[in-house]
Parts: sequence; structure tokens; C-alpha cells
Amino acid sequence: MSEPFYTLKNEVFANFAYYATISTLKMMAMSLLTSRERFVKNAFANPEDIQLGRDKQAKVTLTDPDVERVRRNHLNDIENIVPFVIIGLLYVSINPSSTTALWHFRTFFFSRIFHTIAYQLPLPQPSRAVGFAIGYATTMSMAIQFLRALFK
Amino acid sequence: MSEPFYTLKNEVFANFAYYATISTLKMMAMSLLTSRERFVKNAFANPEDIQLGRDKQAKVTLTDPDVERVRRNHLNDIENIVPFVIIGLLYVSINPSSTTALWHFRTFFFSRIFHTIAYQLPLPQPSRAVGFAIGYATTMSMAIQFLRALFK
Amino acid sequence: MSEPFYTLKNEVFANFAYYATISTLKMMAMSLLTSRERFVKNAFANPEDIQLGRDKQAKVTLTDPDVERVRRNHLNDIENIVPFVIIGLLYVSINPSSTTALWHFRTFFFSRIFHTIAYQLPLPQPSRAVGFAIGYATTMSMAIQFLRALFK
Repeated sequence: MSEPFYTLKNEVFANFAYYATISTLKMMAMSLLTSRERFVKNAFANPEDIQLGRDKQAKVTLTDPDVERVRRNHLNDIENIVPFVIIGLLYVSINPSSTTALWHFRTFFFSRIFHTIAYQLPLPQPSRAVGFAIGYATTMSMAIQFLRALFK
Repeated sequence: MSEPFYTLKNEVFANFAYYATISTLKMMAMSLLTSRERFVKNAFANPEDIQLGRDKQAKVTLTDPDVERVRRNHLNDIENIVPFVIIGLLYVSINPSSTTALWHFRTFFFSRIFHTIAYQLPLPQPSRAVGFAIGYATTMSMAIQFLRALFK
Repeated sequence: MSEPFYTLKNEVFANFAYYATISTLKMMAMSLLTSRERFVKNAFANPEDIQLGRDKQAKVTLTDPDVERVRRNHLNDIENIVPFVIIGLLYVSINPSSTTALWHFRTFFFSRIFHTIAYQLPLPQPSRAVGFAIGYATTMSMAIQFLRALFK
């Protein structure tokens, strides 16, 4: 009879669940940032949205550079945060050391916060590239540990 | 020794699993809707796809408004349904009241069905905005309850 | 007292976790392929990225056909691999036959590898369409089995 790993009594799962939640909330915040940018720039994606702008200058455009910058940032979050959540959830099942696991979760989360700051200010490159690479490497590290434990 | 939460014997998990599955199937249906729209409008994304259209008018375009409308709807589903599944899965671990949880899952699912109807007909705004906001608020509510339970 | 399903001692979960991990790694590889294509074609999405190219011909463009092909492939992975992981994770909870489950996971993974080869070479259609359809049908099959088990 085995003790379940996926319970908040398991410190590794509780820490994972916390960082998965705040990383997901950070990703969801990009939706609000996109809406805000559309109103600021009067740049809407659909004809029926123009009335929301209540501004004579509101227009339909899919190429506003500031709106598209936020949207690329959002998509980049999806491309990186969703894999982190999937791999992190499976990584919990190998019962890693709580300290090692926590540092992976923390590093990933803060790398994505930094990535967004670097993307939106924007900071000169390679700032954003470094933010991306650290998060990517953290998820890869968990994936490799998981696969090694699976075949041990 | 703790009882596992992630089993269909747990009513909250069973309800979550049902709504997560049908929300994911709804999201997957957008792929088929995109393909259908590409054939209807003879608007394909790749040169090699034109032969599938078997129509002299088939062309490569990334700017057909009807195809792009379906694709934005699909991406909006990904931006909202994937966070719902992640946050909902973690929310199960705090062992919420079954009734409260079920209403969150139901509200989210129907808000996304309404969002798609409002996007594709389209209905006048703020219909789609309201559909989006209700789903978003539902996921936020689960996230807040989860974080409060974690730090209690 | 029920035995947890989500443990590596459960062969179905261990097999799922393996294929979910390598499918996610395959999806993550598309990020690197996009970066590589941007450097090869000197086609960057942001003005601040041009300095990374260190080439007088580096330019900002969102319409390079080769870069956009890789990006559509990446988005198609997200649209299909994320649903596979969600539905597959829930499918484990119905305790399916290990052999049946393993063939679903394997078929899905190899259909996505074939889809990417067909997209990037590219192979003549309907190669890519067949790769897409097999993966889609595999996820649908797990969803249907899950829903049937839930209402049995």
C-alpha cells in the first residue's frame, strides 16, 4: 500500500502547487494586459469590438506593434509555463528532495517574471533570451531527472 | 495514512474530470472548425495544402477574416481552458465542498460555450467580453480559494 | 481505502508519464527550431532582437514563410499535445488495460513526430493531415473511454 504523492501533506507537491498556481496566474494576467493595450492603442481584432472603445479613432488591426508584443509574450508564456506545469507535476511522482525541487520551482517562476519585464520594457537583448533560457533549462532539468528515475 | 484525492471515488475529482474533459473536447473542436472554414473560404496556410482543396480558387493566405476569427477563438480557448484545468486540478487537493466546486466547473464550461457562440455568430459586444469575464473570474475564484487554503 | 492511481508503481501511469514527458519535450523543441530559423533567415520579431543576429541583413518581420511554418507547427503541437496530456491524465483514473493504454500513448507520440516531419520537409498532403488525424483520434478515443467509464 503506497502513500499518495499528490496531496498537500507532501511538501514537494504543496510547493509545486503553489508555484504552478502563481505561474498560471501570471500567464492569465497577459490577457488583461492585451485588453488594456487594445484600449490604449484603439487597436481591436474584431469589428464588433470597436463599440467597446467608444472612441472615433478605434479601428480593426492585427498589426499594432504594442498589442502584438503583448500577444507574443502571452504565447511565449503558454509555450513555457504549460510545459513547466506538465513536467513539474510528473516530477513530483519521483519524490525528489524537497530543497532541490523548491529551487527548481522558484527559479522557473522568477525567470518568467524577468522574461516578461525584459519583453515589455523592453530591456536590451540578451536580457529576454537569458530569462527564456533559464526557465527552459529548469524544465529540462526536471524532465531529465524524471526520465532517469523512471529507467533506474 | 491519507486517502488519495485524485480518484473517481472522490466526487469533487469526478466532477472536475468530467468538466475538464468536455472543456478540452470543446477546445479540440476548434481545430475541426478551422479546417472547415479553410475549405469553405479556400484559404489555406501552406502551399502544399492547396491540392487538398481541389478547387482552382484555393489560395495561400494568412489573413482571411473568417479563418482568423476561428483561430483567435481557438487561441482564446487555450488561454483560458488550460489555466482552468491546471487551477481546477490543484483546487481538488484542498478538498472543497462538492456543491461549491461543481458550480465553479459548470459556470466555467457554460461561460466558454457562450463565449464561442458570441465570437462566431458574432453577437454584439459586450456579449463575448461577458462570456470571457465569467470564465476568467471562475478560475480566479478557484485560485484564490486554493492559495488561502495553502496558507491557512 | 483505495490505492492511488497516480504513482509510478501503477504501470499505466508510468507509461503515461513517459509519453507525456517526451511529447512535451518534442513540443518544447519547437522553440529552439523557431530561434534557429530566425537566425538562418535573419527574420526577428522584435527590434531589440536584431543585435542578436549581428548581421547587417537582420530585419524585423512577422511574415517570413519559413519562420511562420515552424511557428504554426509549434501552435499545432500546443493545440494537440496539451489536450493529449489532460485527457491522458484523466484516462489513467479509469484504470484501463495497460496494453490498450500503452498503444494509445505510443500511437499519439509517433503520430506527432510524423506530423512534424510532414510539416517541415514538407511532405505532400495528405501526409500532414493523416498525422494530425491519427493523433486527434487517439485523444478522442481516450476521452470517449473515460466518459463511458464515468457514466457506467
